[in-house]
Amino acid sequence: MFEKVLVANRGEIAVRIIRACKELNIRTVAVYSDQDANSMHVQLADEAICIGKAPSNESYLRIDRLISAAEIADVDAIHPGYGFLSENAHFADVCESCNIRFIGPSSRAMNAMEDKAVSRSLAKKAGVPIPPGSEGIVENEQEALVVAKRIGYPVMIKAVAGGGGRGMRVAHNDISLVKGYHTARTEAEKAFGNSGVYIEKFIENPHHIEFQILGDNKGHIIHLGERDCSIQRRNQKVVEETPSPLIEGKFRKLRDKMGKAAVKIAELAHYTNAGTVEFIVDNNGNYYFLEMNKRIQVEHPITEEVTGIDLVRYQIMIAMGEPLRHSQSDIQFKGHAIECRINAEDPFDEFRPCPGRIEMYYSPGGRGVRVDSHAYAGYTIPPTYDSMIGKLITYGKDRREAMDKMSRALGEYMITGVKTTISFQQAILQDPNFRRGVYSTNFIEQLLSGARRELIEEKA
Amino acid sequence: MFEKVLVANRGEIAVRIIRACKELNIRTVAVYSDQDANSMHVQLADEAICIGKAPSNESYLRIDRLISAAEIADVDAIHPGYGFLSENAHFADVCESCNIRFIGPSSRAMNAMEDKAVSRSLAKKAGVPIPPGSEGIVENEQEALVVAKRIGYPVMIKAVAGGGGRGMRVAHNDISLVKGYHTARTEAEKAFGNSGVYIEKFIENPHHIEFQILGDNKGHIIHLGERDCSIQRRNQKVVEETPSPLIEGKFRKLRDKMGKAAVKIAELAHYTNAGTVEFIVDNNGNYYFLEMNKRIQVEHPITEEVTGIDLVRYQIMIAMGEPLRHSQSDIQFKGHAIECRINAEDPFDEFRPCPGRIEMYYSPGGRGVRVDSHAYAGYTIPPTYDSMIGKLITYGKDRREAMDKMSRALGEYMITGVKTTISFQQAILQDPNFRRGVYSTNFIEQLLSGARRELIEEKA
Repeated sequence: MFEKVLVANRGEIAVRIIRACKELNIRTVAVYSDQDANSMHVQLADEAICIGKAPSNESYLRIDRLISAAEIADVDAIHPGYGFLSENAHFADVCESCNIRFIGPSSRAMNAMEDKAVSRSLAKKAGVPIPPGSEGIVENEQEALVVAKRIGYPVMIKAVAGGGGRGMRVAHNDISLVKGYHTARTEAEKAFGNSGVYIEKFIENPHHIEFQILGDNKGHIIHLGERDCSIQRRNQKVVEETPSPLIEGKFRKLRDKMGKAAVKIAELAHYTNAGTVEFIVDNNGNYYFLEMNKRIQVEHPITEEVTGIDLVRYQIMIAMGEPLRHSQSDIQFKGHAIECRINAEDPFDEFRPCPGRIEMYYSPGGRGVRVDSHAYAGYTIPPTYDSMIGKLITYGKDRREAMDKMSRALGEYMITGVKTTISFQQAILQDPNFRRGVYSTNFIEQLLSGARRELIEEKA
Repeated sequence: MFEKVLVANRGEIAVRIIRACKELNIRTVAVYSDQDANSMHVQLADEAICIGKAPSNESYLRIDRLISAAEIADVDAIHPGYGFLSENAHFADVCESCNIRFIGPSSRAMNAMEDKAVSRSLAKKAGVPIPPGSEGIVENEQEALVVAKRIGYPVMIKAVAGGGGRGMRVAHNDISLVKGYHTARTEAEKAFGNSGVYIEKFIENPHHIEFQILGDNKGHIIHLGERDCSIQRRNQKVVEETPSPLIEGKFRKLRDKMGKAAVKIAELAHYTNAGTVEFIVDNNGNYYFLEMNKRIQVEHPITEEVTGIDLVRYQIMIAMGEPLRHSQSDIQFKGHAIECRINAEDPFDEFRPCPGRIEMYYSPGGRGVRVDSHAYAGYTIPPTYDSMIGKLITYGKDRREAMDKMSRALGEYMITGVKTTISFQQAILQDPNFRRGVYSTNFIEQLLSGARRELIEEKA
């Protein structure tokens, strides 16, 4: 049994992990940068250690300082959260070599899924379709053109080390391919220190659907159903829900099929702890393996709401060596859950981040409403990190009820002092296509162009 | 279908009702006293009307002004919440005669259950045991002494119009009976404008267990299980939970028996809408009818959590003439829920109310945590009304999990500027007897005397 865990993160996910530890009676150690000295995760943890200055590479990304803090505080384990070092196999290795348990997959499994070219070949082995594309990294323009000719335009250029839309370009012809190839490489080098890119068929109006995986150290792996994360802006998820309206509506058999596929891939990678297998699904119900995320995800709460299973608690239990207590048939899905990410951004100015001091703050509450947030009146959102204020999750017996609760909760979420995306989220919730559950990853682009048209028409 | 509802209340219950209306797409009208002008219910409602000055008899208790406001705003119905006019049959009558639906039981049913002497005779008719006692109101000292002799000491003197511990006295002998008889009458006159008192056998170490009832206008009545409200301080509920540890532990058959008894009483009263039948249960599993509450109750959320049924929504649906959508066998109980009332009171100074401005406020969140509150940083709790800041409700798959979540959530509830009962609630949650589920209505008295002893020992 762990007695003490260090949380190597900040913001809402650090608070989330501290909550899980407290409910398990495990003491917590927060780490923080100078900018985060008054943050909620520092206030809630039993101990807190400053690990450096605000730029993340001076603090939250410093493996040496995290290990020092862990040794000073004498912790049994480290939870990395998401982002930062959460998918860094080297960090996991260093932890284990210092006799500190890393709460996440083994570095071996991480390495297997790290390189997207490798993970695609694993998916192939599992019999899971992957989008037609290059075999691994594309070395030069010529090779890119050959691949594009073979699979046909439009194609997508993607960074092998990528994520969050960086190092990603769509090309509709040879000219945009050559241009996109070089920009993607430059962007990838800058963002991930790795300029490798690969090419795959671009699927139009795709749906982004992912499956939550849990695996223990005895090789037992289950899935906890899907999350539809198609509502994205520039490849950043904005609204997530489960079950997926696409699967519920047209392709009910996909849940079982894709779930099994996700488990198979995780099995081949000898995957342990929590992970997510992401798929792209087209309008005909064809699905393709996209990538595997080797961490707890921002959108994990919606899975918790419909399955009744605490994922972060399970992560800790698995890291302690506990076997899974659920078999696949124990996992029952009940009701519908939606998550809206509330960011300090100005939706009327290209979603420019708006850090600053929160003046008034009233958090929604009542039945079926969950708020995962580190924010409060008087808290200053620093300019250094992501702009997330919190996650608003609603649960209802069906999609209609979950949506009605979300509209109600968004309507009562009051934040002044910084600009927020609440009104934008409300616009999504009111959209007739969203309400019907008919949307792809193009949804927000269409919504915004519609909004722009309306604005222009209003002015005219 | 109602289009607009007036909420004739304030504080968290007004917010609760507005939430239910919003989820049903019903417009809301708040009413407020001058002291409540900036209250959250005013901010959340679609419209707001000032109905007078702060003392309740100048505003929230003024039937004429409420009706005027309802007519000005052209509402279809009034929800009275709890307290104030919620159990006032005359108000319900006036509403109906003005063609405004009263969201609650009919005035006929209210009158039947209003007078405690009458409701006891109804219970008798339903075959439900009542504590031995006087037949109705005790007219004078002599009669009180005769009754006490017949049923034996200790006895309880209670106001017929009572509630919340006012007009209530325990007597262990003739001298304390005579004294208590007069004080109870004076108190009852002052608090309820009705000095009538009755006498019943005082049950030692009793458990306060109540059953939630729902009835539609077609005479269909069901119960939604019990709530154990034995954790009381001076007859004010402090912590409530469902299922009752007493019933779960020793008397499993009682749920069905008492539930049926509660439904029977409600049927005899031709009861409609939401109501609660309160029982006293002794350590041997004998139960006695106590009274019926003819309103939504403060502790209703715990029933919502374990049944998945929205009680305030149901109240509105029933008032609209909808039949119940659940039969008794549809009602399934799942998991365990606990509610802690968080008050602005000083637990180290006899629970003296501490109104004032809330400075820092961080509301607990995450999985299994529900907050029903109108409070936020910057809000000033007025001195005029009750001192409730909010209700903290946790839900878990079993009692252990619900308690662990409650301890965790109490630990992260941060309020400065006013004193609160959070630390007191935490002490209850940590108490070994509470954790074992072994407690009666004497629990808090014992806890406090223990705490006092500890304090004295510490000083010595």
